[in-house]
Formats: sequence, C-alpha cells, structure tokens
Amino acid sequence: MVENRAARLDGVFGAVADPTRRAILAALARGEATVGELADRFPISLNGVSKHIRVLERAGLVTRDIRGREHRLAFDARPLQDAAEWMDRYRVFWEARLDALETLLESRRRSRRRR
Amino acid sequence: MVENRAARLDGVFGAVADPTRRAILAALARGEATVGELADRFPISLNGVSKHIRVLERAGLVTRDIRGREHRLAFDARPLQDAAEWMDRYRVFWEARLDALETLLESRRRSRRRR
Repeated sequence: MVENRAARLDGVFGAVADPTRRAILAALARGEATVGELADRFPISLNGVSKHIRVLERAGLVTRDIRGREHRLAFDARPLQDAAEWMDRYRVFWEARLDALETLLESRRRSRRRR
Repeated sequence: MVENRAARLDGVFGAVADPTRRAILAALARGEATVGELADRFPISLNGVSKHIRVLERAGLVTRDIRGREHRLAFDARPLQDAAEWMDRYRVFWEARLDALETLLESRRRSRRRR
C-alpha cells in the first residue's frame, strides 16, 4: 500500500538522519555485534546506544537475535532499497548539472588550446 | 569537513523523512512554484506548507527567489547527491540478497526441468 510505503520511508529516512545511527549501521555492516560491544565503540551511554538501536529496529534496518541473555544485532539493508529508489528519481537532476559542468569545462579547455 | 558533511546529511535525511515534504519536492521537480501555488495543491494550511518549505530550505533542497511580493521556490537536487552517495555504500548489501535469490530460483528451475 502507498501509505505503508510512505510510512516506511519516513521511518528509514528519520532513522538515518543522525550521525550516531549512521555509524551504528556502518559498524553492523562490517559484522554482527551485541548491544554491549556496540556501546563500547561509541562515546555515549549504553542507554543512549540502546535508544538509537530501537529507532533503527523500528525502521527495519537492524534485527535482534536473542540467545539467552545475549542480544545479537545485525544490519538489514532491505529498507534502504526503497529509500534509494525514491532518491534515484532525482539522480537525473544532479547528473544533468554535472554533465552541464563537464561540457562547460570542456569548451573552456578547447578555447584555451585555440589561443 | 567531515562534521559539516554529517550535519548536511542529518538535514537532508530529516527533511525527506516526511511525506508532505517529499510531495513538495516532487512538485517542485516538475517546475518552480510560489508558496501560494504549492499550498493550493496540498490539503494543509498555508502556514503548514510554509513550515515544511523552511525545513526543505534549511536542508538546501529548496531555493527561494524573492521578486517583489512573489516568492518563487525551486528544487535543488545537489544535497541529495551526498545522501545518495552515503546510501550507495550499502547498495551491495541488498543487491547481494537479490543475486542470491536469483541464483536460488535459477537452481530450482533447473532441478524441476531435470525431473
């Protein structure tokens, strides 16, 4: 449903709109970790890290596997695919700008050679 | 600077984490518009639309050209480029999943043909 997709995009974009949460994703993309292991790597409290992880879980970007007292966290990139698809619609806009810049630089290079 | 880049990413992702703001960007990507013209297209108050536009301006996604009493708004895709670059780092993760799925489906298709 369109509404669900919009809500999912809100969640994903909101989740990655924070430098600590982006750093947590980068860490988990290198491999699974426990909450404690992640907390050791960031200069914020365990409670602070836990809050960020919950935001990432709600967005579907982090999954939690509970084995006894150990909570293992893993990165799930799938929600980013929707977000990237939304962004790809606008790729043409900045690529057009870069193309125009390249054409401009090329024509300057040519006119210099002619001098 | 890395810190500035992080703050810019926070602003861009935060700005697009809202369905009305994404719809405003989509409308402006089709062409410039005044605040009033935009407000007419959305079922929220002029004040509500103005607030969303300010968030988009702070993120650098919308520029405002003031001609007398007319404020013309335009879409600027450049900040999305940084955001897309951040996202592209993770593209390999969901593409790997899709490749794995394709391989699985292909091997199922083959084993069925053999029967």
